[in-house]
Formats: sequence, structure tokens, C-alpha cells
Amino acid sequence: MEAAVQIDPAATGPAIAPLAVSIGDPAGIGPEVIAKAWAIRAAHRLPAFFAIGDRRSVEAVWGGPIALIAHPSEAVGLFDQALPLLQVDDPGDILPGTPNLAGARCALDSVEMAVGLARSGAASGLVTGPVAKSQLYAIGFRHPGQTEFVAERCGVAAENVAMMLVGPDLRTVPVTIHRPLAKVCEGLTTDLILSRARVVVRGLIRDFGIVRPRLAVAGLNPHAGEGGAMGREEIDIILPAIAILREEGVDVKGPYAPDTMFHAAARAGYDAAICMYHDQALIPLKTLYFDTGVNMTLGLPVLRTSPDHGTAFGIAGQGEANPRAMIAAIAQAGQCARARAAVQAA
Amino acid sequence: MEAAVQIDPAATGPAIAPLAVSIGDPAGIGPEVIAKAWAIRAAHRLPAFFAIGDRRSVEAVWGGPIALIAHPSEAVGLFDQALPLLQVDDPGDILPGTPNLAGARCALDSVEMAVGLARSGAASGLVTGPVAKSQLYAIGFRHPGQTEFVAERCGVAAENVAMMLVGPDLRTVPVTIHRPLAKVCEGLTTDLILSRARVVVRGLIRDFGIVRPRLAVAGLNPHAGEGGAMGREEIDIILPAIAILREEGVDVKGPYAPDTMFHAAARAGYDAAICMYHDQALIPLKTLYFDTGVNMTLGLPVLRTSPDHGTAFGIAGQGEANPRAMIAAIAQAGQCARARAAVQAA
Repeated sequence: MEAAVQIDPAATGPAIAPLAVSIGDPAGIGPEVIAKAWAIRAAHRLPAFFAIGDRRSVEAVWGGPIALIAHPSEAVGLFDQALPLLQVDDPGDILPGTPNLAGARCALDSVEMAVGLARSGAASGLVTGPVAKSQLYAIGFRHPGQTEFVAERCGVAAENVAMMLVGPDLRTVPVTIHRPLAKVCEGLTTDLILSRARVVVRGLIRDFGIVRPRLAVAGLNPHAGEGGAMGREEIDIILPAIAILREEGVDVKGPYAPDTMFHAAARAGYDAAICMYHDQALIPLKTLYFDTGVNMTLGLPVLRTSPDHGTAFGIAGQGEANPRAMIAAIAQAGQCARARAAVQAA
Repeated sequence: MEAAVQIDPAATGPAIAPLAVSIGDPAGIGPEVIAKAWAIRAAHRLPAFFAIGDRRSVEAVWGGPIALIAHPSEAVGLFDQALPLLQVDDPGDILPGTPNLAGARCALDSVEMAVGLARSGAASGLVTGPVAKSQLYAIGFRHPGQTEFVAERCGVAAENVAMMLVGPDLRTVPVTIHRPLAKVCEGLTTDLILSRARVVVRGLIRDFGIVRPRLAVAGLNPHAGEGGAMGREEIDIILPAIAILREEGVDVKGPYAPDTMFHAAARAGYDAAICMYHDQALIPLKTLYFDTGVNMTLGLPVLRTSPDHGTAFGIAGQGEANPRAMIAAIAQAGQCARARAAVQAA
């Protein structure tokens, strides 16, 4: 993949504000993986960040230094000495592995504050820790997930954002997302492909510094339908979207046979793969980059990444949680924040 | 993956008959990749094999030595000096890249003879070169592909065979195969999952020497349906199949979220992944092993592998065809032939 604006994570580009990292459900592994990421920040050259959440839930799982801050601007100076933390309303006693409603409120406060700080520019982006949807639903949350909540807080309709999975040399975007396989076809429209693809093009330009993004569009059916012999969606739905994108000047190819577009040589030919359904996008990404794939939301005014794992209540508080995905999410947000700053400065 | 019978491709186990390699359409890249595989047989420690097809179509694309044979038994002694070749009826002049009906007849004769020799034991297995279905249809061929033709010649119903994709540390088997995505669900039944899984268990025992094969079954829907919230096929179709297989003593787990079962650590936990549709099986295999994945047909009395590529008429005769997939298919057939001989001898 080509990055027209060269991004070196250690480079001293325009100064960027610290990243806001919401701790997610305080009874999950969020506090632990954020603290562990801070502890090995130097080895991964992580940008300055601060946690938003509950101090005691971090202390319950980690013995390192914490610096309470009142404003994000304090985080940069303190980042070398301690994990900067913005406290939300105290949820009371939180037992790792045992979620409760106070914890769910803490999780929601945490992501809400992170969005607000990112929108104001006090944070250069947000990284969201894992939440438990069932817990959030119990306190009145009415969104399918954090992504839709963040979109609403930013005033963006959910269909105008795109979920992009980011690995070292592969980016994939599902057009339809959380649908049973039997309902993928009825949810797939030319308009939805267009909407996602346009969001992706803008995101690759703004957040990755790619001047002229190259898209590869997957087919829906085996062998991309074999010219209509094995499904007509390529002809009726996907090709019209590709034609319109080309008219708009987008560098886009496809539809490709879904099984032949994700090997190393193929990946080198595009900057993002537009996939027709969840597992078409997720299988190649997680087959290659299970621990380090980053989930990124494009189409928002703010930068947002998240590790692609859940609360893992079953192992919370035992010191066993692997911080690699959180580290990757923070590093990716930092790289994109620098690219965004460089693009704006150019 | 565990191989209980240790198979070293260079080991001197029971002597095995040579492999029969059908050249496929003589105007495609089959002749070239078979000849190239022979030329570097030593580096890849390939077992003795012989080509079945048309001598002149090999000579048209390769300048190396060819030894015409009248019976497979001559191939072993000649294999070090020349590419052994069994001539079928002369198709006349064949121009690489320009298929014709005489070439299609040659391709069909070639695979038919290969099946017969493998069934008789004169060949220890068959490796089928790529054919062009449209050409075969023009001469009256009425099967969806070579696999069904080989199955019929062996007296096995097509639903009682399984297509297995084999890579160095991953084997995947699609339950439904060449269906439009919209028709996957209506083709997926508990009985079909059972039928494929049983064929796979027998194949892993007989052809890979795995005493107690471990199967991992994929879900159909994102996140394996999330307990019915995102599709009910896991509950209604897949779990009943798993329960029956367990009753039969099969070591089987699942259904797994399709995106989290193909990374390296997950792959180490099973010997074959039973997948619900074509691309669920093909995407992970080809993402990891694009050039070297082998297509193997299980459930036949004979061993059969094939390289997972087509005739590539567009590059035929230009010396550019990559023989890696053909080499992998021959090597895999040889390993399985030795394992089969070892299992029978044990």
C-alpha cells in the first residue's frame, strides 16, 4: 500500500494533542490493557494518550503510577512518568470480571467524554475500550454498538460511516455488517456500496495521507459470479457502483473473485478492499493479523479506533489480558492523527 | 496439525506406483507446468510421475527430454532421465492459447485414462491438470467439473465426495460449494454437513495417517450467530450435526465465529475446518497459500489432487506459467500415497 505522505511514528511532525482512551467497562480487561500499553509505550513508540474512566478500576489490576489530570493538556507533560487519567463519576466498588450497572454508566460516561474532547480538539482522536452491550442496554442505551453512539454524538447518520479493519498491509471494509448471511443479499445495494466507498476514499486521503486511494471491490458470489452463471449481484448491483465511482474519478477495480484478492501480491495492488459482508472482510484480516487488527470508524469528524476484542470478563483481573490489540489501536490512531495534521498543514 | 504417521517425503517407505498426471487442455498451461515440475523434481523431492496427454503439446512449450512409455511401470526407471509420457489419441496440431475441440477430447481422454490407471493400482494416484469447462461442454461433457467426472468413473455419488483445500498448516472443506451466496442457506442441511464431515474424517485417517482427526466446524453467520440473535442456522442446522458426529466418536468442535478460527494459533487446534460455503473455505486458504494450495478430492477409491488454477490460455506458450501449484499438487499426492501405503501396511 502506498502512503503518499510518509509517516514515521517517531518523526517530529506538527505537534498533536494527546489521544483520549476510554477504558470501556471497568470490570472488563479495558483498564488492564490500557495500563499495560502505557507501561511499554516506549518500545512501541506510542503517542501521548490519557485514559478516561475510573482510577480505582485501574489500580485494582495494575500497580503502576497513575496521574490524575483535570484537562487533556496536562497529559503530554505527565505521560513519561505516569498513566494520565481523567476521572469520570465514581462508580463505586468495581470487581474485575463482575460487571454491574454502575460500571456500565462509567463506560458510557467514559466514551461520551472522549468524543467530546476529540470534537473540541483537546484530544487528537479517541480509542474506545471494550464495552458489554448487554450491560449498556440495561441502563437504557439504544444503539447497536459504540460506533453508532459515537456517530450520533458527532451528528453523523450511521449509514454514512464505514467500519475499516486495518492491518499492517491490508485494510478491509464490510459494506453490509451485522446481518445473518441469509439477509446479506437483501441489504446489499448500489447506493450502500457507493456510500461506503466514498467514505473510505475520503478517510484514506485524510487519515492516511494517500493522495489517490486505490480501491478493490470484492464480488459477492464464488468466482465473482462467473459472469452471471453463479449469481447476478455482481452484474446488477456491484458493477453499477464501480461505474459510478469511476465517473467520480475514483481509482477502483473489481469485482474480484473474493478468494483471490487477499494474498500478499494482490494486497499490494490496492489501499482498501471493499467487501460485501462481515466475514468477507473479517476472515482475511483476522487470519493474517488476529492480535493486531485495528477497528477504525471512518466518516466521523473525529478519529476513532478500537481494539477488535470484547470485555473478556472471564479473564479480567488475572493479569493475563494481552495488550497487543490496544497497543495497535493507539499506535494506529496516533499515526492517523499525524497524517491528518500533515494533510491539513500541507 | 498432528500427523500420527510421520511422513517424510524423502523417506523410503513402502514402494509406491508412480503418479498419473493428466495434462488437462493441451492448449492451456498444463503441459508447461507439468514439464517445469519435472525439471525441478529433485529440488522438491517429487515422487515419480508420468504425464498423460499429447507429446507434441509438451514439445511445443518445452525443450527438455520426454520418454514415451506404454505402461506406468516404465515411468519409475525413466523418471530420472526424462519426463515419462503416455500418449493419448493424437489431437493434431495444438496451438498454445488457442483451444479447440480436438484438444478438449485429448483433455478428457487424459483424465479418463488417469482414473483408470489409478483404479487399477498401476498409478498410486492422479493429479489432474486444468481443463476448460466450456470446451468440454462443446464435446458433450455433462458434469459440473472434473471432480464429478472422476467420481462417476469411480462409481461414487457426487454428494459423497468432499473437496478439501490443503495448505502447509491449514485444510479447509466447503460443505456447500458452487452456489450463489443467496442460495447457500437453502443448500445447507444437517445431512450434508454430516456427509462431508464423515468423508473428511475417513480421508484424514487414510490419506494423512492421522489416527484421530480433529475437526473444527465454522458457523455460517457473523460471530456464529450470537446465540440466534444474528441467524439461527448454527442452532437449527450446525449444532445438531456436531452432536451426531460426537455420538459417532468424532473429535469435533464448533460452531466457531468464522473470522476467528483461521489465525495461526487457531489452526494448530484442528486437522480440518468444515466450512459452510465456498469462500469461507477458500478465502483463508488462498489468503495464506495462494500459489501452493492444493485441491484434493476425498471420498474416492483413488487419490486425486489438482492445482487450484485454470487453463490460463492467455499466457499459454509464453514460458511464463508458474509451476508452484502443480508441484504442490504432485508433492501432496505423493505424500498421501505414502501415508495410504503406510496405513495399509500397519
